[in-house]
Amino acid sequence: MTSNAPGSYLTGLVGSGIGPSLSPPLHEREADRHGLRLLYRTIDLEALPWPPGLRVPGGGTGGIPDGGTGDGGADVPGGGAGPGLAAGRLLHAARTVGFDGLNITHPCKQSVVPHLDELSSEAAELGAVNTVVLRAGTAVGHNTDVTGFRKSFTRGLPGAPLRRVVQLGAGGAGAAVSHALLGLGTDRLVVVDTDTDRAGRLAASLAGRFGEDRVTAAGRSVLEGELAGADGLVNATPVGMAAHPGTPVPEGFLHPGLWVAEVVYRPLETELLRRARRIGCRTLDGGAMAAFQAADAFRLFTGLEPHTGRMLQDLADLVGAPAGAARG
Amino acid sequence: MTSNAPGSYLTGLVGSGIGPSLSPPLHEREADRHGLRLLYRTIDLEALPWPPGLRVPGGGTGGIPDGGTGDGGADVPGGGAGPGLAAGRLLHAARTVGFDGLNITHPCKQSVVPHLDELSSEAAELGAVNTVVLRAGTAVGHNTDVTGFRKSFTRGLPGAPLRRVVQLGAGGAGAAVSHALLGLGTDRLVVVDTDTDRAGRLAASLAGRFGEDRVTAAGRSVLEGELAGADGLVNATPVGMAAHPGTPVPEGFLHPGLWVAEVVYRPLETELLRRARRIGCRTLDGGAMAAFQAADAFRLFTGLEPHTGRMLQDLADLVGAPAGAARG
Repeated sequence: MTSNAPGSYLTGLVGSGIGPSLSPPLHEREADRHGLRLLYRTIDLEALPWPPGLRVPGGGTGGIPDGGTGDGGADVPGGGAGPGLAAGRLLHAARTVGFDGLNITHPCKQSVVPHLDELSSEAAELGAVNTVVLRAGTAVGHNTDVTGFRKSFTRGLPGAPLRRVVQLGAGGAGAAVSHALLGLGTDRLVVVDTDTDRAGRLAASLAGRFGEDRVTAAGRSVLEGELAGADGLVNATPVGMAAHPGTPVPEGFLHPGLWVAEVVYRPLETELLRRARRIGCRTLDGGAMAAFQAADAFRLFTGLEPHTGRMLQDLADLVGAPAGAARG
Repeated sequence: MTSNAPGSYLTGLVGSGIGPSLSPPLHEREADRHGLRLLYRTIDLEALPWPPGLRVPGGGTGGIPDGGTGDGGADVPGGGAGPGLAAGRLLHAARTVGFDGLNITHPCKQSVVPHLDELSSEAAELGAVNTVVLRAGTAVGHNTDVTGFRKSFTRGLPGAPLRRVVQLGAGGAGAAVSHALLGLGTDRLVVVDTDTDRAGRLAASLAGRFGEDRVTAAGRSVLEGELAGADGLVNATPVGMAAHPGTPVPEGFLHPGLWVAEVVYRPLETELLRRARRIGCRTLDGGAMAAFQAADAFRLFTGLEPHTGRMLQDLADLVGAPAGAARG
């Protein structure tokens, strides 16, 4: 729309309770390495100068790739609801003033979809967008949570068996992770959520896309049995974050033959990972997914190839822990 | 509204035909000297993704502090007209996505006023705003064209007599210059415009503020006689810019006792200044006004004291001429 100087990029994050997001420093540090003048701003729905009716209940979680997994409110589908209006209005405002791109998080990942002109294949399959590229008058939605988890998993747990995987959490991050896991070849995915309806909806959606026999929804009551026969476990709930301490799985359910992956990245070493490592599991923390989703968004925004290794290091520095996302 | 990292500033320029503006490099270079991460974007009304009915006819002039003096269209007062809607919508969009400040130029300097929460004294007197500070949910309008010309004049033509001054051009830049001249103590200001109605309106407004006996409107027919008895001449029309070559005053009307000031800054040495200098007049080019208005806007946006000397040098570098705004 408005053309600005080469090397000038205006980007940002739209969502609720996003003050603590690490995306601004991740993107801006990488931009500095490329010699770009890039600003990455947070546009927090809770702080908007709008009538109260348009305000959206806060998410407030900032330690997983979106703030709406596990116990948070689900995204509201686009349309007349608060987040739908909010997403549409913010996208329009950002286009008007010349943003080059936006990341989208809870509660707008689904509600933003009807306001876009095109979708990437991942975003279309998932029905959720975490990255919007604004270029030449067109808004294109992508989902780098999916690509971010896929790259993190391939890098951090190479050769990990995928015959049977248990995933905890069927919210926004869970949906992205499950798409990535099935795309990576998981034979059978068991989706577990305290909200069994939500688990059922995600499983049904995944079954339609990847095949009925590859996905099951289950309640927590079957968790011990499912884990006993599983190759891997992914936590896509917020449990383990500073604001949600503890572990989503009793230690007794773990066994050394299980790989364990986290979506939580603040802290990098969650209680779940600490326990899993103690009994000899291969583990993958949430840092690489966070860094890869940011790197993929940076590539989409700028067209430049990110220094992924540096972004992984930045993520670790920002979380305040030594680097090294995968161990085992 | 949204609070972002300390040292992060999102600013820009709203107007029509502003692609060639020097404000982005002036602000961004100064921000770099302060170690700020500042983006200064152009938001061009001619390139907006809006229905055609909202589009505003182009100004297209980029060598004077606003694009609407002399032969361009006048600002349209706020309300239902195109620029009024445009200014209101753009300001709302910019507030929504967290801009810290905006410069405003043709054709929105007047039409933006009804959309602001407060005005500085200069902006209120002039009824025109070229700088909006967005902070803590409040939009405050300022006019750094007035302060910029005042500082440029004081610096570049110290001690210049102000008994009788002729000003050419009663558009947006002309209004700012005339306020500055009368504020500096000009005893009698003669406002000349090919559009005598416009000259009359500006003179009437100035008379109401500064006194009936201090301001007169006149047509070009009296120019020779007025200049013969004048101390100074200010060109606030676009004549002399690359796109409007020539001089607004026949050389024969000039005399060595006259100081001559320009609002045009591209080029810094206009035909008028060249001729005036040749016959021995003290002269002031438009560069310092441009640099000072940017410096004053930078101070308002960031709260930091600009390196004015460096901004003057930047302006000269950007225009492609040696530094030195005042000679004579």
